[in-house]
Amino acid sequence: MANFGLWDLRLVRPRDGWPNERAIAAASSADHVIERISVYQTTEEAIADLSLVIATTARRRELTHEVIGPGEAADRMNAHIATGAGAGILFGREKWGLLNEEVALADTIVTLPVEAAFASLNIAQAVLILAYEWRRASGRSELLFKSAEELPASRQELVGLFEQLEDALDRAGFFKTPEKRPTSVLNLRTMLSKAGFSEKDVRTLRGVVSAIDRRHERPRPDRPARTAKSEKKPTGNK
Amino acid sequence: MANFGLWDLRLVRPRDGWPNERAIAAASSADHVIERISVYQTTEEAIADLSLVIATTARRRELTHEVIGPGEAADRMNAHIATGAGAGILFGREKWGLLNEEVALADTIVTLPVEAAFASLNIAQAVLILAYEWRRASGRSELLFKSAEELPASRQELVGLFEQLEDALDRAGFFKTPEKRPTSVLNLRTMLSKAGFSEKDVRTLRGVVSAIDRRHERPRPDRPARTAKSEKKPTGNK
Repeated sequence: MANFGLWDLRLVRPRDGWPNERAIAAASSADHVIERISVYQTTEEAIADLSLVIATTARRRELTHEVIGPGEAADRMNAHIATGAGAGILFGREKWGLLNEEVALADTIVTLPVEAAFASLNIAQAVLILAYEWRRASGRSELLFKSAEELPASRQELVGLFEQLEDALDRAGFFKTPEKRPTSVLNLRTMLSKAGFSEKDVRTLRGVVSAIDRRHERPRPDRPARTAKSEKKPTGNK
Repeated sequence: MANFGLWDLRLVRPRDGWPNERAIAAASSADHVIERISVYQTTEEAIADLSLVIATTARRRELTHEVIGPGEAADRMNAHIATGAGAGILFGREKWGLLNEEVALADTIVTLPVEAAFASLNIAQAVLILAYEWRRASGRSELLFKSAEELPASRQELVGLFEQLEDALDRAGFFKTPEKRPTSVLNLRTMLSKAGFSEKDVRTLRGVVSAIDRRHERPRPDRPARTAKSEKKPTGNK
């Protein structure tokens, strides 16, 4: 509930009473939910002020309610609450869900689109999915952080990379024959154009090309030992 | 995973080893997932055959990946897999998630649209949301059972109910004055028309109206005792 911004939790005859030390410890400091919990003796009392009540169930009932999925349920609740009216979701007991007498108090049944052979979720999972859909439906599902804001490379910067790379490859004898060069250049430019590199990426790549290109112009630096094995068997380059 | 139809679970250096009796016991008989688990020594090996890898993380990284939500992640994986290619989602350790070195192996970062103050879900919850979105994106999110198929009431059946009810109300003096009758009838018919009653509902309602209407024509039956209290204090009707 706290993960997705819900806080109004109503308990009906909690098996282990309330307050409950174990439940509080398991709530991972979601104190604002825990402190607002209200306890009722009957389901009728718990939902008395609501005008849209949706009951969760994992199995078909001998009841004639309409059955909808979690996305539709969240959309309807959102539209309902937008009018100023109250809406709620009924969750059943961990072991056997809601009684038919409790489902009969609801407008609609919601069930999850699960595999037939593995249809039962525990109550925390069912709450999570409904809370997740509620957040989406209520338009508050922006992400906490966004893609890093890096300036995408301009075509000029990309062309600078192309020309540097092609020049280095010319000198390295990469293009086997002059006839093959245009096609190879096309393929290289296409590959690098579609990669979506940033300005910074292009600078990094130019440094990479330059370092490899000039490798033989400079005395080879000592390579740091990568593993214990290479330390035991130093090569002639050391 | 089993709830939403996923079965290919790959473990990298599981802390408590594998096979693990406690994990198997907690898997609620999802044997087809448990039996197929494969174990790897490195993340690189675990994802070697995949060509789209999405990393889950709850916090911003010093990495320049694109960041997307679970719905977008599932849509991309579905489009990718539809081409015959392999895709996977990387989940981190329960306590501190993925290392940057592991995230750097991924195409994209996915994060959940959570509350800033309660941003951390446990790994089972993160898997559940991604699996749920995957099922939606892959078009297999039909519900296990549908709304009860009841024939909706025909207008003729509804009009039969209207006339029976209005006749009973005429005899009961419900319409205070003849001038008010047309408006009251309109309101009653509107209320009953928009309720979406089935054929069976209309039959039930006609029985209800009939029973109340004829209440005084019949000797009152013994009422069954509703509670222990009423048994102790029988009324004169008994």
